[in-house]
Amino acid sequence: MKWTLEIEDVARIAQGATLLGAGGGGDPYISLLAARQIFDDGGRDVNVIAVDDLDDDALILTVAGFGAPTVGKEKLFDLDQLMHSLRTLEKYTGRKADALIAVEMGGGNALVPILAAAASGLPVVNGDGMGRAFPELQMTSYALGGVSPSPFAMADEHLNSIVCEAENAKKGEAFARIIAVEMGLHAFLTAYAMTGAQARDVVIPDTLTLAYKLGTTIENAKSSGSPIAALIQGIETEVAGTEVVHLIDGKVTDLWRSTEKGFAIGWCDLVSVDDAGLQARIEFQNEYLAFTLGGIPKVLTPDLICLVDSETAEPIPTPDVRYGQRVTAIGLSCNEVFRSEEALEVVGPGAFDMEYTYAPIEELARLTN
Amino acid sequence: MKWTLEIEDVARIAQGATLLGAGGGGDPYISLLAARQIFDDGGRDVNVIAVDDLDDDALILTVAGFGAPTVGKEKLFDLDQLMHSLRTLEKYTGRKADALIAVEMGGGNALVPILAAAASGLPVVNGDGMGRAFPELQMTSYALGGVSPSPFAMADEHLNSIVCEAENAKKGEAFARIIAVEMGLHAFLTAYAMTGAQARDVVIPDTLTLAYKLGTTIENAKSSGSPIAALIQGIETEVAGTEVVHLIDGKVTDLWRSTEKGFAIGWCDLVSVDDAGLQARIEFQNEYLAFTLGGIPKVLTPDLICLVDSETAEPIPTPDVRYGQRVTAIGLSCNEVFRSEEALEVVGPGAFDMEYTYAPIEELARLTN
Repeated sequence: MKWTLEIEDVARIAQGATLLGAGGGGDPYISLLAARQIFDDGGRDVNVIAVDDLDDDALILTVAGFGAPTVGKEKLFDLDQLMHSLRTLEKYTGRKADALIAVEMGGGNALVPILAAAASGLPVVNGDGMGRAFPELQMTSYALGGVSPSPFAMADEHLNSIVCEAENAKKGEAFARIIAVEMGLHAFLTAYAMTGAQARDVVIPDTLTLAYKLGTTIENAKSSGSPIAALIQGIETEVAGTEVVHLIDGKVTDLWRSTEKGFAIGWCDLVSVDDAGLQARIEFQNEYLAFTLGGIPKVLTPDLICLVDSETAEPIPTPDVRYGQRVTAIGLSCNEVFRSEEALEVVGPGAFDMEYTYAPIEELARLTN
Repeated sequence: MKWTLEIEDVARIAQGATLLGAGGGGDPYISLLAARQIFDDGGRDVNVIAVDDLDDDALILTVAGFGAPTVGKEKLFDLDQLMHSLRTLEKYTGRKADALIAVEMGGGNALVPILAAAASGLPVVNGDGMGRAFPELQMTSYALGGVSPSPFAMADEHLNSIVCEAENAKKGEAFARIIAVEMGLHAFLTAYAMTGAQARDVVIPDTLTLAYKLGTTIENAKSSGSPIAALIQGIETEVAGTEVVHLIDGKVTDLWRSTEKGFAIGWCDLVSVDDAGLQARIEFQNEYLAFTLGGIPKVLTPDLICLVDSETAEPIPTPDVRYGQRVTAIGLSCNEVFRSEEALEVVGPGAFDMEYTYAPIEELARLTN
């Protein structure tokens, strides 16, 4: 199947990826505005290709925004900055990319490879390394599958650039994070150089298609009589085999956020809008990471916690949560690749210094209080 | 003149550079031990060449330790780490160095190019970019003369590496500093790629010779009947035209130090050992930066404050100052290149957030209290 993206496709992908982003991945609105401008200004055709279509020795690179989404929201998109991170890594490795791919199919970062593709003419691989968004560089199916993020390149809005080769993915994250802080928490990152053969082993496939379908589902739900019910039914249809749990319809009663150590961290408290008045808390670090009801965990990272507007079914990124908002929390089971013991050490609650012990949403969300 | 370094020459250079280091430049003892080992293990000949001997289009690179001297003192020297920073920059620029040079003729950093030269066979240029030591990357005659430190490479003991291209020298320092912190404040840095023609414009020449002569002076002073008098007379002989001021013979009565923001900062208080009981304070950030007597500044950066053991005339780096020590403070005028208005913005007291207004040692040290 040949898929050359129209701007309407990109808009759907943005919306679906904002749901999959579990609150993170960067601002989808700014990336979509940028896409509109590049497409309008005669950008190159953006062809989406399947991971199976890659030549064994093709060079694939990830491109992404890197920092805190709260900061990214305040900044204009800068194509030169993005392309500078890509060109810097190409210069260092002495090899040109044959295709681009997302690190995460979440928020604006789902669109970043599309933006670079429209500027360069390179194809975009249908897939990503998370099937959602996570806040840290090592939290990918790529790294878990043995592909190093190093060497990686970063660029800031003044076109300062860094290339880093780190001994492992976690050390790479440590360097990238402090550099991102010095870059004002608004950097672009090019990383995870891999061959087509490697990509077939480690990419979570077809997630651009998934985001597109979920975006369509959200659009349809918005114009239906009961958006939340329509959204949940739509998700169940589009992501067969995924556990989908309607966690709470609530109101935001308290909210704390801070930009610390290079992340947007915080929590929000919800109370259910039904007579039961249930108390829930969602903790986040760029992404929503833990959902507890009456203090008892119901969804824990790496499973997905998605927050949507109760009236429009529109997903709400972490920087956009507001006091008094009517929101619905939905839990989704994550890709199986993140549920191994080895993976949970990288993306489970302990990786974020949370004391919860991970259990799958299929178990936790079924427990009664 | 052809000068192929013997290990005894290196020992003299180390000692003289420790005086010129004004407390900083990294531990000379560790670098000298490393030199002994490399020379003993059949290192290549280290030829010192004059800046005038460089071909116009030769590529000269600086190599140096970068971090906090308090930390460097605790670490073993690692030749692989040093060479990795050099090779990483060569890989990035696609050009091999033709000669090496010091960033600063201070402490261990005076010897780092010699160590890399003994490993690679490259010649070392007789000169440096400070004529002393300063704590920050932009504080060089190179940067003041229009040579950028970028692109620069850094490596840590695990051979993690970074290449950075920054918009200006000060931003380069900001990146290098946070990276050094992540590298445990014990990194090697390769920077300031320049041509032979550029080097002739910006290098402070013949400072290896100067360090060698000062080292010889210290050796002679040690074995004389009155080391301090011999040292001062020797300095006056060796550095004609330099103001040399015997500031105080004192005892360290109080001392505060801390590793903050990637630097070894602090101060020490002295009281004179004569009947006058004068109170002096020396403030430092890797290097000694301000000497005040009864609260009145007598020597301010970029002029040099050198602390030596009152009994042996051996220079004392900032990490080695101890409570109760008998020390003599000596002030030296700095190279003229650092006294322009433009230069004082980069290396004067204000650059270190000190409120003192710079005046040359020739004026300040002559004022009576």
